[in-house]
Amino acid sequence: MNKLFGRPLEVVNCGLGSFANDLALAGGKVIPLTWQPPALGDVAAGLDLAALIRHPLVEQANQRALEQYLNAQPVLVDILSAAEAVDAMAHRKLILHAGPPIAWENMCGPVKGAILGAILLEGWADSLDDAAKLIEDGLVDLEPCHHYQAVGPMAGVISPSMPVFVVENKPTGRRAFTNFNEGLGKVLRFGANGEEVLERLRWIQTELAPALKAALRVSGEIELKPIIAQALHMGDEVHNRNAAATGLLVKRLIPALLESAPLDEVRRVIAFILGNDHFFLNLSMAASKVMMDAAANVPFSSMVTVMARNGVEFGIRLSGTGNQWFTAKANPVEGLFFPGYGVEDAAADLGDSAITETAGLGGFAMASSPAIVKFVGGTPSDATEHSRRMQAITLGGNPAFTLPALNFAPTAAGIDARKVVDRNILPVINTGIAHKQAGIGQIGAGITTAPMPCFVDAIRALAEQVRLHAGDVA
Amino acid sequence: MNKLFGRPLEVVNCGLGSFANDLALAGGKVIPLTWQPPALGDVAAGLDLAALIRHPLVEQANQRALEQYLNAQPVLVDILSAAEAVDAMAHRKLILHAGPPIAWENMCGPVKGAILGAILLEGWADSLDDAAKLIEDGLVDLEPCHHYQAVGPMAGVISPSMPVFVVENKPTGRRAFTNFNEGLGKVLRFGANGEEVLERLRWIQTELAPALKAALRVSGEIELKPIIAQALHMGDEVHNRNAAATGLLVKRLIPALLESAPLDEVRRVIAFILGNDHFFLNLSMAASKVMMDAAANVPFSSMVTVMARNGVEFGIRLSGTGNQWFTAKANPVEGLFFPGYGVEDAAADLGDSAITETAGLGGFAMASSPAIVKFVGGTPSDATEHSRRMQAITLGGNPAFTLPALNFAPTAAGIDARKVVDRNILPVINTGIAHKQAGIGQIGAGITTAPMPCFVDAIRALAEQVRLHAGDVA
Repeated sequence: MNKLFGRPLEVVNCGLGSFANDLALAGGKVIPLTWQPPALGDVAAGLDLAALIRHPLVEQANQRALEQYLNAQPVLVDILSAAEAVDAMAHRKLILHAGPPIAWENMCGPVKGAILGAILLEGWADSLDDAAKLIEDGLVDLEPCHHYQAVGPMAGVISPSMPVFVVENKPTGRRAFTNFNEGLGKVLRFGANGEEVLERLRWIQTELAPALKAALRVSGEIELKPIIAQALHMGDEVHNRNAAATGLLVKRLIPALLESAPLDEVRRVIAFILGNDHFFLNLSMAASKVMMDAAANVPFSSMVTVMARNGVEFGIRLSGTGNQWFTAKANPVEGLFFPGYGVEDAAADLGDSAITETAGLGGFAMASSPAIVKFVGGTPSDATEHSRRMQAITLGGNPAFTLPALNFAPTAAGIDARKVVDRNILPVINTGIAHKQAGIGQIGAGITTAPMPCFVDAIRALAEQVRLHAGDVA
Repeated sequence: MNKLFGRPLEVVNCGLGSFANDLALAGGKVIPLTWQPPALGDVAAGLDLAALIRHPLVEQANQRALEQYLNAQPVLVDILSAAEAVDAMAHRKLILHAGPPIAWENMCGPVKGAILGAILLEGWADSLDDAAKLIEDGLVDLEPCHHYQAVGPMAGVISPSMPVFVVENKPTGRRAFTNFNEGLGKVLRFGANGEEVLERLRWIQTELAPALKAALRVSGEIELKPIIAQALHMGDEVHNRNAAATGLLVKRLIPALLESAPLDEVRRVIAFILGNDHFFLNLSMAASKVMMDAAANVPFSSMVTVMARNGVEFGIRLSGTGNQWFTAKANPVEGLFFPGYGVEDAAADLGDSAITETAGLGGFAMASSPAIVKFVGGTPSDATEHSRRMQAITLGGNPAFTLPALNFAPTAAGIDARKVVDRNILPVINTGIAHKQAGIGQIGAGITTAPMPCFVDAIRALAEQVRLHAGDVA
């Protein structure tokens, strides 16, 4: 049967693979088309999606949201305590954590450990047991960083006395806050809360932050977009690789530090920053946060403005649906584990750092960072392919961030939730892997994706908004 | 005539292009083969080449030379004055310059300007005229850096009181020397010799060099191979782009400087180094020089150990022919000119910095540095193609230096003069372009090639060596 009307048989198969196999066995030429129905085959969601595609309200809103993102100018302007930066933290016992909201009893090990450590740091309790009791008695509030314009990597725990970098979007004046990167090993963001961890956090409060605050007064405000742009040309994707960006930041800070601080303090500060190639990560996150906040709250826009993980659930926000979270169980991470660890030791995907991918960096900019595959797995051509594939689910490109390996193509920018659902292509995220027990630390790194149900739910909520608006108008 | 015996005509044409055109016009399918006879069609040279190809003496010698290059461990061990490092400079008025030997009257503008400036710096004369007269009277010796295990970028001028970095090949103890990079603008290496140039050189002697020498005692010796390897993963090719490598060096030096020098000195030293992304270039050159010297003087080896330019002629040395130079007129540079300048303003290709290409870096490692095309011209895929093409003329790869964009392939290493001549593929070189008049400085950057006649002459000399040996044996 390998001829039909005298011509060789060629079949395009877009159904079950077994159809294609049968045809191939019979000598036919089969081109398998990897097509899946949009919205995971959910017919009602598919209809909602259809209502949004090419809808003029959505198109216009997305254009505006994308422009506001592109025009953002993230600038490091100050260093404050979290209580100075976030008003609510000055008036109640409030601790911020990564990802969408989650109740204490449902939190994963590293986040619980980090929160208990922060309570000890604040002096609200003297033991881990007393700290846990405070929470159980409802005397400490736990809320997402994103509810207070903040972001933090991994557990993302920020308590009132911790210093935060203040990054401002110059055209609008809106600010974002992030804590200081503690380095690797036993650190709060992986849930460690022993004395060495608290001691380092106290040193960050009492010496590092004041020294950098003073240096910043000498150096003047530091524009972050040019540092990120340059780092993308030096092998960083500014999520899991920040070696070049950290170096570029140090280059700006050192001359100022040498003016503003005594020599022994400069020595300790420089040794700390130079000892941690991830130091810039938190600034990359805060820069991404103000860029995404610039695009937020444009009614009807399907642009994704937040992707974040709390170690149990993955959550996203759309510009058009404002502060509403759409959450789902986090997808597993495909990664490289450090010796002695495996997938059974891993916590679920964790941290606010996926804000970098939301802003077109990290996994979206992997083509700029072929060497990162040594850390997260895969090959340099996989890395390039990730960056290329993300162009299929974004509204446009960011000419400020270009990818040398793709002939200086702009990074894919502005995830369109409609395209994610329609094309079944999930946003790719480079991520560290935390041990599921508090305090053991990072045990690997890898690549994961944002889970589809978040996007399906978001699309349905947006379609409802559009329907209601049509009703109002009618 | 587009059919022959009933089949479509397909012709492979390896002669004059007009044959192919005629066939194509007549409707034939023509595949033009870009083949040229080896050795530029020089029949005697072609016979010499044939005698060397697969010759066991040459094969064995090349294997040994390549291994010695691969095993080299270049380490920054000290900073000395040139007179301390190079014995001959302590005993006579000797000034070193870039490239193969050349008489004063034949030198190009920038080299003359730099030599006159060095004479003023040494205090051997008080005016440019008196300095020129000293040379014309034969009272100052001018010799190539390479004759004294030294290398210098552009004019490459080194005079006795100048400080030099001392780089040692640890397995053999052999050393190489290089001067300090002065930054851009009006600098001696482009032939500028005014008071600001001399003042900067005096500051390098009196403050920068002693400060770095003291810092080096605190930091300990600095291995250069790991810095180069890491920089290749951060967008440098360590010839025309050294931004990452300079940052990595600073990272090593700063903590030591903060221990060893007073604060105001640290400020000036750091400001100078951070102000010049090319600071590492000279160290990259000295590291390349000791790697290539490790491969030198292996009888019968056709491996190229030096490529250098004096602004008029290009010169190479082969391992098997020792200190003999093979020279030819330098090829033009295809490049990007700074605004206001063009090809008519350019000096001929200049400097010892092609030692980086000889060691498999620079143009040979362009695949690691897609962003460099913004500086030297072309596209990122051209850059990758250059690295790939160089594999056709080298003896092997260097696993210490890998190229992320080529899936971490080792850099092409060990140029085989036989392959250059046989395949008509010239070594590619990334280069700065100097203004032909002394002191104007850099006016562009681009890509050039080593000229073929050097390699033809070298092959002929090597063939003679092999013939003589056969005669001795017989």
